[in-house]
Amino acid sequence: MAARDRPVLRIGMVGYAFMGVAHSQGWRNSRSFFDPPILPELVAVCGRDTAKARELARRFDWRDVESDWRDLVAREDIDVIDICSPGDTHAEIAIAALDAGKHVLCEKPLANSVAEAEAMTEAAERAGARGVHAVVGFTYRRVPAVALAAKWTREGRVGQIRHVRAQYLQDWLTDADTPLSWRLQRERAGSGALGDIGAHIVDMVQHVTGETITGVSALMETFVRERPVAVGGGLGEVTVDDAAVFLGRLSGGAVATFEATRFATGRKNAIRVEINGTAGSIAFDFEDMNVLWFHDNTADAADAGFRRVLVTEPVHPYLEGWWPPGHGLGYEHAFTHQAVDLLDALAHHRQPTPSFAEGLGVQRVLHAVESSAADDSRWTPILRTRTGAR
Amino acid sequence: MAARDRPVLRIGMVGYAFMGVAHSQGWRNSRSFFDPPILPELVAVCGRDTAKARELARRFDWRDVESDWRDLVAREDIDVIDICSPGDTHAEIAIAALDAGKHVLCEKPLANSVAEAEAMTEAAERAGARGVHAVVGFTYRRVPAVALAAKWTREGRVGQIRHVRAQYLQDWLTDADTPLSWRLQRERAGSGALGDIGAHIVDMVQHVTGETITGVSALMETFVRERPVAVGGGLGEVTVDDAAVFLGRLSGGAVATFEATRFATGRKNAIRVEINGTAGSIAFDFEDMNVLWFHDNTADAADAGFRRVLVTEPVHPYLEGWWPPGHGLGYEHAFTHQAVDLLDALAHHRQPTPSFAEGLGVQRVLHAVESSAADDSRWTPILRTRTGAR
Amino acid sequence: MAARDRPVLRIGMVGYAFMGVAHSQGWRNSRSFFDPPILPELVAVCGRDTAKARELARRFDWRDVESDWRDLVAREDIDVIDICSPGDTHAEIAIAALDAGKHVLCEKPLANSVAEAEAMTEAAERAGARGVHAVVGFTYRRVPAVALAAKWTREGRVGQIRHVRAQYLQDWLTDADTPLSWRLQRERAGSGALGDIGAHIVDMVQHVTGETITGVSALMETFVRERPVAVGGGLGEVTVDDAAVFLGRLSGGAVATFEATRFATGRKNAIRVEINGTAGSIAFDFEDMNVLWFHDNTADAADAGFRRVLVTEPVHPYLEGWWPPGHGLGYEHAFTHQAVDLLDALAHHRQPTPSFAEGLGVQRVLHAVESSAADDSRWTPILRTRTGAR
Amino acid sequence: MAARDRPVLRIGMVGYAFMGVAHSQGWRNSRSFFDPPILPELVAVCGRDTAKARELARRFDWRDVESDWRDLVAREDIDVIDICSPGDTHAEIAIAALDAGKHVLCEKPLANSVAEAEAMTEAAERAGARGVHAVVGFTYRRVPAVALAAKWTREGRVGQIRHVRAQYLQDWLTDADTPLSWRLQRERAGSGALGDIGAHIVDMVQHVTGETITGVSALMETFVRERPVAVGGGLGEVTVDDAAVFLGRLSGGAVATFEATRFATGRKNAIRVEINGTAGSIAFDFEDMNVLWFHDNTADAADAGFRRVLVTEPVHPYLEGWWPPGHGLGYEHAFTHQAVDLLDALAHHRQPTPSFAEGLGVQRVLHAVESSAADDSRWTPILRTRTGAR
Repeated sequence: MAARDRPVLRIGMVGYAFMGVAHSQGWRNSRSFFDPPILPELVAVCGRDTAKARELARRFDWRDVESDWRDLVAREDIDVIDICSPGDTHAEIAIAALDAGKHVLCEKPLANSVAEAEAMTEAAERAGARGVHAVVGFTYRRVPAVALAAKWTREGRVGQIRHVRAQYLQDWLTDADTPLSWRLQRERAGSGALGDIGAHIVDMVQHVTGETITGVSALMETFVRERPVAVGGGLGEVTVDDAAVFLGRLSGGAVATFEATRFATGRKNAIRVEINGTAGSIAFDFEDMNVLWFHDNTADAADAGFRRVLVTEPVHPYLEGWWPPGHGLGYEHAFTHQAVDLLDALAHHRQPTPSFAEGLGVQRVLHAVESSAADDSRWTPILRTRTGAR
Repeated sequence: MAARDRPVLRIGMVGYAFMGVAHSQGWRNSRSFFDPPILPELVAVCGRDTAKARELARRFDWRDVESDWRDLVAREDIDVIDICSPGDTHAEIAIAALDAGKHVLCEKPLANSVAEAEAMTEAAERAGARGVHAVVGFTYRRVPAVALAAKWTREGRVGQIRHVRAQYLQDWLTDADTPLSWRLQRERAGSGALGDIGAHIVDMVQHVTGETITGVSALMETFVRERPVAVGGGLGEVTVDDAAVFLGRLSGGAVATFEATRFATGRKNAIRVEINGTAGSIAFDFEDMNVLWFHDNTADAADAGFRRVLVTEPVHPYLEGWWPPGHGLGYEHAFTHQAVDLLDALAHHRQPTPSFAEGLGVQRVLHAVESSAADDSRWTPILRTRTGAR
Repeated sequence: MAARDRPVLRIGMVGYAFMGVAHSQGWRNSRSFFDPPILPELVAVCGRDTAKARELARRFDWRDVESDWRDLVAREDIDVIDICSPGDTHAEIAIAALDAGKHVLCEKPLANSVAEAEAMTEAAERAGARGVHAVVGFTYRRVPAVALAAKWTREGRVGQIRHVRAQYLQDWLTDADTPLSWRLQRERAGSGALGDIGAHIVDMVQHVTGETITGVSALMETFVRERPVAVGGGLGEVTVDDAAVFLGRLSGGAVATFEATRFATGRKNAIRVEINGTAGSIAFDFEDMNVLWFHDNTADAADAGFRRVLVTEPVHPYLEGWWPPGHGLGYEHAFTHQAVDLLDALAHHRQPTPSFAEGLGVQRVLHAVESSAADDSRWTPILRTRTGAR
Repeated sequence: MAARDRPVLRIGMVGYAFMGVAHSQGWRNSRSFFDPPILPELVAVCGRDTAKARELARRFDWRDVESDWRDLVAREDIDVIDICSPGDTHAEIAIAALDAGKHVLCEKPLANSVAEAEAMTEAAERAGARGVHAVVGFTYRRVPAVALAAKWTREGRVGQIRHVRAQYLQDWLTDADTPLSWRLQRERAGSGALGDIGAHIVDMVQHVTGETITGVSALMETFVRERPVAVGGGLGEVTVDDAAVFLGRLSGGAVATFEATRFATGRKNAIRVEINGTAGSIAFDFEDMNVLWFHDNTADAADAGFRRVLVTEPVHPYLEGWWPPGHGLGYEHAFTHQAVDLLDALAHHRQPTPSFAEGLGVQRVLHAVESSAADDSRWTPILRTRTGAR
């Protein structure tokens, strides 16, 4: 089918900040660098601050601007609602959109509580029965090296998994004079490092291993309990965690360690996952994002070693759309891959991944981490049934 | 000035392949991620294969398609001609465009010969006198880590330069069964590894050091002299170099080694430059493009060491337009930076860099390399005057 | 004082295996590469298998061989008993030697239980009052890069510590067909990965930070519960841990993660410690043992980065005895440094470090790890008082 | 044969400085860590400064001290003369020793001129006919990772070699105030960086590839031409090269670049060799000496990558004598391997390697480098015949 005759997917996006920019670029690039069976159409961006929404619209050629997400959801010329607003708004918008028959792409974390995530998942399942789909934006899955890791793990190249060590290390709160912001307040952000960045490594580990985390033992800490208030002066209380560390087990028997922190001085966005199995090991660090390290344990001892695979070959996941070997990708490319995958799934009437149910699974792990940390680090199993948790 | 009232720069681009895509993305991103004083307008893309040109136009929203570059140059609604076609077409198009009063952005290498490059430089200087500017696309200068290296070198952090080692290593010709292509034929490509990738490291070294190469001693080699012909079968002759290595001196007295090859098995796009000076050292490898290594020789011996600077801070060159620290950039981002710099220079009626004269300087080094290699590797000074060289 | 007139320290060593070789080399090198105020004299090596003891004596010029450690301790021509035999023998030998007025160097772990370690510490303190000293062999402290890390931390270059992540990763048990050995049996080895290698990172963290671990939450696992019996055939039970992971807190408030395993496929002897503080970060990996990574958080953001300090300068700890810069050391050099430090402390009538009390402190952490792992990972404080704990 | 009944090799060593220490340790360790068929006996060390020679003898248990090498050579109780004195003494001592029927181990470079090296080679060949052997100390060949590289290259794992890039980078002369020493004076040292460190990479490349260098084009430089004189004050002339860079060809057709310098700020002892071939690539850096990087070009593109082989497995060259996997070796271990190999060759009446003829081959390359540098970098073939060169 010639490109000009292809069906389109009409997009309405809520939010215009960091994620709004990344999603805009993802949608736009999807038709420039790939060949999706449905073409995205950037219909409207919605934000309470319409000046900012309008500025984003100008930069990325969104046709319209809306100021109330309800109006966006009500529009008949929109097929998908792309939710890039803060976490405390996710549940309401997503459920309304799904009930209105719109597909939903919702940024992570799915919600600020398990209860909200459950309600969203129920809405998604109701909608799914009508062919309306919901997907959560764990975008790091679509970094080529991470996608390759998941592929190789599924192909058995790691064998039975024994160990996982996962870290998400940032350092932007190291300085005690960094002012208070909404991200450091529980009522807005839900949690701190745990929900913001810990969620990513929980999803990445479950995705790459193909296993689920069955229980955790956790410790959370707020190192700097009061910070300067930007407006008005004085000190305000930090009500979320600065760091969360936890031990876990995977469904296949592996032992895992997790660490999410904003106090790892000198580490800027170090998402690191290493997996050791009977057949091999895999290691990844987002600070060198085009590389996947692989150790083949079936090789002779004399030959074995961690191999630095530059994940830029045309045969690597998502690379067919980009540049020749050795010409690396950057952070935002994964948003293009997310758009392409979503367009492809919807074109074929498939449920895109990760589903809201997967997002709920991550939420349950985060909840168990908080429960364990509040209860003397006691081992806390992850419940998989949906029975009015909390 | 509000964005909607800003002047525009109307662009006509020749070429639709690898570089056509990269330039399209660069122009488009320039107004999405940065705030240039002039906004680019993608007016027309030109290519002999109009189906391919049309496809690129569709993907990147070029308004029109032209099939003859002369028609493009003749259009009154175009301000700049962006030349992304093969090297043997550069001189004719660039000179015509400049003479027609269009600014020119010309991909590297400037030309296939010093004579052509000289003619282009003369045209550029004539045009410059009328406020019409020409710039050559040594885009790697605008990789943030490379830009930072140049900044630090100029600030004296390396001190007097003693050594440079520069390599551009690829491996796509390692296999003797890789078929013949126009890139391996002298009449089309001008030269092989030397002009295609050696040109980049010559420019990068001159740019980062702020010095010029004053002479060379060179060796060139074609390892595989016949390759399968894709169409028709049989073997065809490879008439360009597979690899070029040379020694050089810089104007400040440093000793340099250069290597450009398509036979460095396992190295995909390894552009490596290391500079050792009395005050410090700098090292870069494009396979880890967001990193600049710096050794501060003024530190105590106990403390000193090569420092891995992740060039993703807002204070680093070009980073203010992108993502938070630790969220790396990819290959094509430098094309956005090139567009932004060009828009900025033209808005302020400044000559953008690198000028055609700089491109000619690179061409002269390449020519001296070929001369030396053909003359028993004898030391060959780089002539700086323009007197009918060759 | 001329070397030939220097006093000597007459050494009797128990054990002839891996550690016996390493200690022999350490003693011998101490007077070849350094200039200790007391010279070591290799008087007698003791082992039940006298053929093996004799072979070691031949290779390293030990003058005599003994078959019973009691005879060794009884000799009047011996000043120090160097205990390199398995952990279940440490307490008896060390206490007897100290009571007999011999200095003691005891390999780690100090003992197989807290009670034994307490008795040893009491014996050491009794002996210390008489000028007879005991020291435990946490040799990795004397790897130059680790010693430098400890120095810099004490000098405040890391500031207030927020995070520690410590791993000791080996993989020699990955294969389920690796046969059972005494190291995998609780009655002989005390514990598995925890005591054998976990002890090292517990000591290293406490030593480098200058803080103590105040509590832990732990998980232990035996992945392969039965292994082939080398002699006689069939399967035998593995009664120790294959892996131990735990969370901890340091006395200064930092949050720490620890992992000790023999199942980290592809990691051979990866002792890794990273420390993040308000002023900087330090990172070490024994697989690249001559390197210390340091991030100076007081530098400008544009300049900051982890610095690869090659710890081979004459000004670095222990390096004055060895080679020019860049000529790295190997594993066993730390045993030479241990010998030198011990000779120096005894010459100056100082208590050498680490004392048995420090060894006991490590033992208490290991004990708490086991307790927590056996009690649902519950948070377990480290007791510092000596009250017949077990 | 029981060790106590083994024949011995009685050693007389000339020199007591850096190399004297390294050789002493090598001889001593050879019988402690390996099981050579002949045992070394440290009979006498010889030096004009007998106090220093005596001090070395004390530290390493050399039995006697001599002050005149002629006396050493005349002793009947010595089987091998180990020459660790400066290069300008090599020829005279080695020839006398060989003529006196002593085996000779001579430190590199073999001599200060091709003529001397030729005379030595002739003496060695005369002696060889009588079963008396000479060997030159290119010790880096015996670093396990380098030995593994040579093994793999010979086994065809690199295939046909296309590229070699070899560097020996130091920085101890970067500071212009570093005083003049004999190493910077031509009459004593022969040459500067070229002979001192360039010799090592020439030998390493020829050894690892199994090919010879057939010609060179070179540039040499003395950056700092006058330096402070330590005694007496004032400035003295530097009469050797600070740096030597050259292009070369190998006998199999590969193109090579070489760089030897003492001005590579921040590089302490970076001996780097990378070899790219049709089947694979190998890379080594002495600053991480226990690692060999290998790229297998026969693997699928999706899987391929440079593999970090930690060369510490018992199956790796020389590792059977040392520690468990992951317990790295240091600089001086290669001297032990040299001793072991020499003991083994002599026990089996084999010519040890590298022979003086190989040392002469290196000398000829160095000579050609100097000739080319003095003649406008002109291509200079390496002559292999011995006909009164110079």
